[in-house]
Amino acid sequence: MKAFNDLADFSNDEIAALLALANRLDEHPEPEALKGKVLSLLFLSPSLRTLASFQAAMVRLGGGSFVISPDMSIHGLETRPGIVMDGTAAEHIREAVPVIASYGDAIGIRAFAERKNLETDMAETEFSSLTDLIDTPYINMESAMGHPCQNLADWKTMDDLSIPSNGKFVLSWAYHPKALPLAVPASTLYTAARRGMDVTVLRPEGFELPGPIIEKSRAAAEAAGGSVIETDNRTEAMEGAQVIYAKSWSSTAHYGDRIADQKLRNGLESWCVDDPWFDNAADDCRFMHCLPVRRGVVVSESVLDGPRSVVIHEARNRMLAQMAVLYQMMGAGA
Amino acid sequence: MKAFNDLADFSNDEIAALLALANRLDEHPEPEALKGKVLSLLFLSPSLRTLASFQAAMVRLGGGSFVISPDMSIHGLETRPGIVMDGTAAEHIREAVPVIASYGDAIGIRAFAERKNLETDMAETEFSSLTDLIDTPYINMESAMGHPCQNLADWKTMDDLSIPSNGKFVLSWAYHPKALPLAVPASTLYTAARRGMDVTVLRPEGFELPGPIIEKSRAAAEAAGGSVIETDNRTEAMEGAQVIYAKSWSSTAHYGDRIADQKLRNGLESWCVDDPWFDNAADDCRFMHCLPVRRGVVVSESVLDGPRSVVIHEARNRMLAQMAVLYQMMGAGA
Amino acid sequence: MKAFNDLADFSNDEIAALLALANRLDEHPEPEALKGKVLSLLFLSPSLRTLASFQAAMVRLGGGSFVISPDMSIHGLETRPGIVMDGTAAEHIREAVPVIASYGDAIGIRAFAERKNLETDMAETEFSSLTDLIDTPYINMESAMGHPCQNLADWKTMDDLSIPSNGKFVLSWAYHPKALPLAVPASTLYTAARRGMDVTVLRPEGFELPGPIIEKSRAAAEAAGGSVIETDNRTEAMEGAQVIYAKSWSSTAHYGDRIADQKLRNGLESWCVDDPWFDNAADDCRFMHCLPVRRGVVVSESVLDGPRSVVIHEARNRMLAQMAVLYQMMGAGA
Repeated sequence: MKAFNDLADFSNDEIAALLALANRLDEHPEPEALKGKVLSLLFLSPSLRTLASFQAAMVRLGGGSFVISPDMSIHGLETRPGIVMDGTAAEHIREAVPVIASYGDAIGIRAFAERKNLETDMAETEFSSLTDLIDTPYINMESAMGHPCQNLADWKTMDDLSIPSNGKFVLSWAYHPKALPLAVPASTLYTAARRGMDVTVLRPEGFELPGPIIEKSRAAAEAAGGSVIETDNRTEAMEGAQVIYAKSWSSTAHYGDRIADQKLRNGLESWCVDDPWFDNAADDCRFMHCLPVRRGVVVSESVLDGPRSVVIHEARNRMLAQMAVLYQMMGAGA
Repeated sequence: MKAFNDLADFSNDEIAALLALANRLDEHPEPEALKGKVLSLLFLSPSLRTLASFQAAMVRLGGGSFVISPDMSIHGLETRPGIVMDGTAAEHIREAVPVIASYGDAIGIRAFAERKNLETDMAETEFSSLTDLIDTPYINMESAMGHPCQNLADWKTMDDLSIPSNGKFVLSWAYHPKALPLAVPASTLYTAARRGMDVTVLRPEGFELPGPIIEKSRAAAEAAGGSVIETDNRTEAMEGAQVIYAKSWSSTAHYGDRIADQKLRNGLESWCVDDPWFDNAADDCRFMHCLPVRRGVVVSESVLDGPRSVVIHEARNRMLAQMAVLYQMMGAGA
Repeated sequence: MKAFNDLADFSNDEIAALLALANRLDEHPEPEALKGKVLSLLFLSPSLRTLASFQAAMVRLGGGSFVISPDMSIHGLETRPGIVMDGTAAEHIREAVPVIASYGDAIGIRAFAERKNLETDMAETEFSSLTDLIDTPYINMESAMGHPCQNLADWKTMDDLSIPSNGKFVLSWAYHPKALPLAVPASTLYTAARRGMDVTVLRPEGFELPGPIIEKSRAAAEAAGGSVIETDNRTEAMEGAQVIYAKSWSSTAHYGDRIADQKLRNGLESWCVDDPWFDNAADDCRFMHCLPVRRGVVVSESVLDGPRSVVIHEARNRMLAQMAVLYQMMGAGA
């Protein structure tokens, strides 16, 4: 595997093989599979699960990793192209990325969306500018629009919990004091659609997901026997839902405009997933979230600490899903 | 072993087995013992020896570890229960701890005392609130009142140096510009008592160790043929001492009250262990300290750099003691 | 090997053996060579390549490492000798270094020049004060005047690229907004000279390298059939050059005097390696730099991104050169 960037790059069989491999490595550890192999980890954006789970994954497979992030005592990283570097930053990402990649058999890169211009972010301009610098196999550890490690972990979680592949999946916007990236909602929508589910995107006006993402997901859903609809009607959305996946995201109507986004967001504090939301859902409807999650803001304590919540299961599956990817990327058959 | 939290949880035979294992692993390395095993390391308080020695210990046993601390570029950790998270912190410790634990076969946690209320700290309220969140085997890397890794390392150090188990051990308060936690003095007192030593706690008025700790230690001493007394008379305390273990700690008379503590502390600058302290001690009386130590404040350069000082030996034993714990917690027979 | 501190400590055969070993480990990995071995990494100065490449190197050889740097959540490190530690720092380097070393089979230490007094820095007063504290084998990860890991990597790079050992090597000063250490230019000069090259040091007035370094390098060059000259004439220097190694460094005429250095430096902005510099160089003249490098300041984008530039190759060789050193220091035959 040369890149793990987007589930859309993989066939159904390939995804099934990754999921099966994740299960196998959980049940039958292979602590010599990646002996002497190195994963370079470059975090241009903050992380907890990704940081921890990739390091753990490499140890479990007998290899190792190292982490570089700008908050370390390094020399300051410049990212702007064509700049005369007479300021604070002493190193340009154009050297840093190939150098870091050169020490590893694969590299994981995290770089969140700039959130200035929706088209630029949709085109993954920044992330591509980084991966274009290297030949090493790479893993998208979250880019402007993608989070395939989370997606694979979530798919595995639904399989683990026997949530039917043609079940009803609600992706719901939630309130949050800050405008957050679209990577998780966009790629989660695609993932559930690709799994063949009937997906409802529940969000207030002004928070519609971008058209191309809806279309890509709808096509994937249709190919798999599922569907994608959008609504701002909570009762309608939750009717018979087997999963509610909550996530806050930026206003797409005012993308990159913090003040307008904040204005639209104010008054939407009731978009906090709470017990009454489940009144007309399936009895065993699950609550999913990629974490970190703000208690009492995105979801009530009652739901988050209750039996519906599978967020820790999802988080652990990050490690297992990534082990499968690393194994295919750097293992004997790679 | 499900938890390594307090030496009091272990029988004499179990402690002897850990000490023997630490020696064995030093002399006969087992670099495949924990192949593919992961130790999660969560530091909610600063660290140097613990941070370094646990990572080294896992490598020596063929496994690995990862570190999470709030000074990293993570999302900010909230610790208060029941809070509506609309401030800066984006993640609650209630998710972070189980997630971090889920990536490891065991987890080490460090969380110093809050030092607001002595009863709360004595009850290990905060540390228990963290370990209650997980089922993973855990190691106390220093809590409000415990530091069992230091204790086991110190015990091993005294064994290594043939300090008699019925010898005289002085635990002395020392001056320090800041009010420090009780974890080391409290658990060191218990350790020396448990080893069967005649323990004298030397401290100025207002710095008495809490009654329940004295009583727990006295009972352990008596069971092992030792004793525990307290005094503020240095000459009496040092008479025939085979070990002086220096440590500064907070005033217990004014626990959590920084200003009153500072007032009491001012004028106690002469509580700096120096050569004359040893005038009536045993000839080969050793100086112990858990580190970090302030030169010229807690102990004179002359003592610290002289032949009595065994602080580096103690620090190295941290790694070996922890290797024994990790081996029993995650190894083949665990 | 007890220390890797300066190429001058090694015979020609020993250097050749290290270079051959670096190549061998690249072509024929030995992922069990350092099984269970630990490298302690102490960074008292910032790092990216060194930080990443040493961690990667240890993984590739089957061992592991840990990193300590003052920007971590440790207790604050005091370095001044003989001080009464009643300020902020809670730990003295006199304890920290032996403790950190005690957890490893070898230790790497980075401590840049103080740049107050040239004689003190030339004498490696600070670095020696650290290595004097330990018996553990150590690696100089850059000191006031040395950077042997970079030197070995650069030597390997020139061998890899078939740059003749009697070729012409230009070490050129370059403009930089800040006064930088002498470690790389001083040790690079010696390295090229030791390799037997005809070395020209190209620098403006006031930036002469220290006499003892020139003399040490000249002696090494003469023994190997090469030469060392100095000039401020670019055309003359570049005539027939097969390598230009660019690096900025402090004014030695005003060492430790920031204002005088800045004054001298102002107006030297044209010392930015650019295409016209190569007009009279050898056709395949290479551009080398240890990185980090400031684009548009030290070197033009055109040169840095062009075919002459071998900076990424050099950086990858850091890992391979260090693997050879680590192997000889901690491996079976060590």
